[in-house]
Amino acid sequence: MDPRVSFITLAVPDLEAERAFYVDGLGWEPAMWVPDDVLMIQVGDKLQLSLWVEAAFEDEVGEIRRGPGVAPITLAHNLPERDQVDGVIEDARAAGAPYVEAAQEREWGGYTGYFSDPAGYRWEVAWNPGPIGQTVLP
Amino acid sequence: MDPRVSFITLAVPDLEAERAFYVDGLGWEPAMWVPDDVLMIQVGDKLQLSLWVEAAFEDEVGEIRRGPGVAPITLAHNLPERDQVDGVIEDARAAGAPYVEAAQEREWGGYTGYFSDPAGYRWEVAWNPGPIGQTVLP
Repeated sequence: MDPRVSFITLAVPDLEAERAFYVDGLGWEPAMWVPDDVLMIQVGDKLQLSLWVEAAFEDEVGEIRRGPGVAPITLAHNLPERDQVDGVIEDARAAGAPYVEAAQEREWGGYTGYFSDPAGYRWEVAWNPGPIGQTVLP
Repeated sequence: MDPRVSFITLAVPDLEAERAFYVDGLGWEPAMWVPDDVLMIQVGDKLQLSLWVEAAFEDEVGEIRRGPGVAPITLAHNLPERDQVDGVIEDARAAGAPYVEAAQEREWGGYTGYFSDPAGYRWEVAWNPGPIGQTVLP
């Protein structure tokens, strides 16, 4: 099995709210849109983000863990320049992100902040000047 | 904000078990390895999978939702040919995947199965003959 991720699928309780945020708010183009079912957006070379309604996700994958707390995953959007981070977080705020956390210096040398989408999934907005950060830059 | 995912971060309770599965089992090469902290693996062009110990994740992101049920996300590994799916699921089983679900025909025309990593994150192994499936093939 090659080390390769093709789709990132996130179960979402309100697909219209996701569309309003990603498509109407951030201006991302749907690669696939099936109302009441799924929204897919190309988020990299050979990589799709799939937002799938919870009921369909649970039918196929199993009952989702519920309750207080955050989902145990984050998605990061890395930027080549430190001074781009705050602006992207403001883009997310303007698009309707329900949670925004201002960027701060991190002990590993980076500068990162967070926002969440309407389903609560956290995105990290990051400037990472280290070698690993160079591997993901556009 | 461009539509772009740079890192997929998964909070994991046992980082050594993750390493045993992905590195020793599947043979994937670490891009970064910091014992008791993080394992990163390049899983696409400009895409890193980051397995981060739960305590550090929670310090930065917040308390994780706990309890019964699956995490509300899956990662998919797509293959160009239908007859490659079963073999990759067997690769995962041989690498020590704690959960394996045989592939089946899906109503949308694909053929997919699942396995989980030691932390319980589900990977879908998929053959998707539709147009969206073509966008993610290696």
